[in-house]
Amino acid sequence: MRRPLPDGFLDRLREVVPGRISLVESELQRHGTDESSHPTVLPDAVVMARSTDDVVAVLRLANEHGVPVIPFGVGSSLEGHVLPVEGGISLDISGMDQILEVRPDDLVAVVQAGVCRVPLNERLARDGLFFSVDPGADATLGGMASTGASGTTTVRYGSMRDNVLGLTAVRADGTVFRTGTAARKDSAGYDLTRLLVGSEGTLAVITELTLRVFGIPERMSAAVCTFPTLAAGVEAAIAVVRSGIPVARCEFLDARSVEAVNHYSGTALEVAPTLFFEFHGSDSGVADQSEETRLIVEEFGGSGFTWATDERSRRELWHARHNAYPAGLASRPGSRSVTTDAAVPLSRLPEAVETAERIFSDGPFAWSILGHVADGNFHALLLVDPEDTGMVDAAHRAAKQLTAEVIALGGTCTGEHGIGLGKREALVEQVGAGTIEVMRAVKEALDPRGILNPGKVLLP
Amino acid sequence: MRRPLPDGFLDRLREVVPGRISLVESELQRHGTDESSHPTVLPDAVVMARSTDDVVAVLRLANEHGVPVIPFGVGSSLEGHVLPVEGGISLDISGMDQILEVRPDDLVAVVQAGVCRVPLNERLARDGLFFSVDPGADATLGGMASTGASGTTTVRYGSMRDNVLGLTAVRADGTVFRTGTAARKDSAGYDLTRLLVGSEGTLAVITELTLRVFGIPERMSAAVCTFPTLAAGVEAAIAVVRSGIPVARCEFLDARSVEAVNHYSGTALEVAPTLFFEFHGSDSGVADQSEETRLIVEEFGGSGFTWATDERSRRELWHARHNAYPAGLASRPGSRSVTTDAAVPLSRLPEAVETAERIFSDGPFAWSILGHVADGNFHALLLVDPEDTGMVDAAHRAAKQLTAEVIALGGTCTGEHGIGLGKREALVEQVGAGTIEVMRAVKEALDPRGILNPGKVLLP
Repeated sequence: MRRPLPDGFLDRLREVVPGRISLVESELQRHGTDESSHPTVLPDAVVMARSTDDVVAVLRLANEHGVPVIPFGVGSSLEGHVLPVEGGISLDISGMDQILEVRPDDLVAVVQAGVCRVPLNERLARDGLFFSVDPGADATLGGMASTGASGTTTVRYGSMRDNVLGLTAVRADGTVFRTGTAARKDSAGYDLTRLLVGSEGTLAVITELTLRVFGIPERMSAAVCTFPTLAAGVEAAIAVVRSGIPVARCEFLDARSVEAVNHYSGTALEVAPTLFFEFHGSDSGVADQSEETRLIVEEFGGSGFTWATDERSRRELWHARHNAYPAGLASRPGSRSVTTDAAVPLSRLPEAVETAERIFSDGPFAWSILGHVADGNFHALLLVDPEDTGMVDAAHRAAKQLTAEVIALGGTCTGEHGIGLGKREALVEQVGAGTIEVMRAVKEALDPRGILNPGKVLLP
Repeated sequence: MRRPLPDGFLDRLREVVPGRISLVESELQRHGTDESSHPTVLPDAVVMARSTDDVVAVLRLANEHGVPVIPFGVGSSLEGHVLPVEGGISLDISGMDQILEVRPDDLVAVVQAGVCRVPLNERLARDGLFFSVDPGADATLGGMASTGASGTTTVRYGSMRDNVLGLTAVRADGTVFRTGTAARKDSAGYDLTRLLVGSEGTLAVITELTLRVFGIPERMSAAVCTFPTLAAGVEAAIAVVRSGIPVARCEFLDARSVEAVNHYSGTALEVAPTLFFEFHGSDSGVADQSEETRLIVEEFGGSGFTWATDERSRRELWHARHNAYPAGLASRPGSRSVTTDAAVPLSRLPEAVETAERIFSDGPFAWSILGHVADGNFHALLLVDPEDTGMVDAAHRAAKQLTAEVIALGGTCTGEHGIGLGKREALVEQVGAGTIEVMRAVKEALDPRGILNPGKVLLP
């Protein structure tokens, strides 16, 4: 339900953040849209924040008047997180793009929330370092923290929850607070860092992050291999994880995903169910890991091993994998994707993937499956014509059915995309009313007027 | 301030948890004492819970009457966490000791909160698995989660925050709720799992845990080497971490700690600043890691490498290291320890350790330093005669001075022991009033009557 802006609010806003406000139609459009199939909802205004002080000023005013504030990075969320469904201000933090500190001796970097992943890694590389979390999109670090992002390297290096050491954030009432330190361990009071990571802009606005970074490994090597069936590839990936091989990435693509990637990125991969691997370590460590993996994978019918040991072919391979999402969209021009995000305990993964195939085979939409199988997490892209409401509805129904079955398998409705708008009912189903009440109590304690990204995570 | 029990409360308690109550003096004593130097405070009663239902019954009644409830495992906390400073019920969960599920295919175990670390690992070993978090003490998993414990293997496998996938917990009002799943990734709503881990029994009572477990590595190998100075050993450890060698443990003991360990555990280690290492992996991986480590350590003057490749000598070595705390106490019969727990960014570790030496050298107490240096975390044992209030006060003053200097270095007042009673002022100093207000808002939202372990974490 859209809240009307109080009279004179925009004038007051112009006073507190002069020169930062946009009401241009194209900007409102851009800030009312994400990568999901949720329909665009326009904000009343966009504020381009340049500092924590700007964020404080906007929140103070908005809280006083009960106006919603929706933090916005680059709009790459996949569940409608940034859509201002109750109206209000889209608070764009992408201009807060300063890398404040790189501390190689501490393996730490401090950044403003609007810094994007790719430029951060370009800067870190000058010191032989990298930031490990890699969701594919060149998202802002603030956005990645807010959705609790993870990605292809999570199996080895963890997700945002594991790699954010501390935060500067602003409460709904405009109070600034800091969490965590640059120490690698901290047991001082409630873990507010991890409470904010994954809270999707509903508890506070993140303005700065202290990140854990890693040294670039001496050797990185990638490999692909193909399987006769989807199930065989999934089983092979699970066996590799269980073996304890410290694989750095382990990604699965079905034949349709490989076909789309070939078209989009100009690769010439064999069109078959495929595992992509990456190994990090010393020369001999990587050689050992690769060989052990090859032996396991062959037991499951894997064949056609191709190694990409030189840096260029390794990068090309992973670039192709990371473009699987736009590649899928491009395979049906004009389409949008309803994207699923199931994660299950490892032993249930084959069953979960089979269930997905069974459900989607009946749908009127094109679809493909890919995922971070070593973490038990996979995605389906259900490609829909956004004008065809019957098709869109069918895709949403199919996605919901998969979610219900995944929850029944002891899994989660979202491994990494978050709840946003699209998974609120699923969250209730998954965690139960008692847990929802705890979440609601936390939300009300930190945002009593309900101005922070209202309508997300929890049903109104 | 002790709250008087309402009239007839114990009779009501006997009705809701018949046969579970103890008022025996020795039990009250045991439940009013931990491993710290904080003086004993007796609870009004002890309840030996056997099930989540018992916990629910106690909390419902206590919340109705505003009676404090303090969860108790084995009493191995080091900052007075379990002391019932406002009176009330010590809720002993050590009888909830069932290992509910071991799922080797999912690398998951589900346990009641009273299960202890050593019996859990004995059970897991039958399936070739282990639980990695190892604080030394044979604590309950519920207690380890509540204090956000970590330990010698955290550098490789993470702390409780990283290895608890989900919880069953009971709110102050007796409502049961569940967090997380057995999937390895979960982005569904607020991360209540990590909010409860480290909350020291002040937000809810944990009754069950879903834990991430690991396969026992093919090869484990340990080594010790000695250094001419404390500083050299610390610098060497930091260099090993920065090199990216996936060392499984890396522990530092000063000469006094080694001497105490030799006396207590019958080892014959050279009495000098010493690093203990452990490497996990394949045969060749461990050989590579060990050799790379030896080369780095020798650059810093490390010598006298001794390898413990067979299982018995490896176990003996780590058994000796794990007994460093009782060994320190035994070196001064009748003493108690004021134990510090500083953690700093890696680059500040040499300065922090030097600062500790400088401060403690002036004290009237015996002391020694040891720690998880690869995580930037170290402890000092300040051994005091508990009858000598002058000495006890001097130790507390010295510990406080170190904490203040550690905070000034960008570190934390506690890397793994938690806040409890002893670090509440330090927490304010470290995180600031704004952050304390956020913590307080969360506490009041989940425990409005303030019955859950009152007086801990936050100052009244």
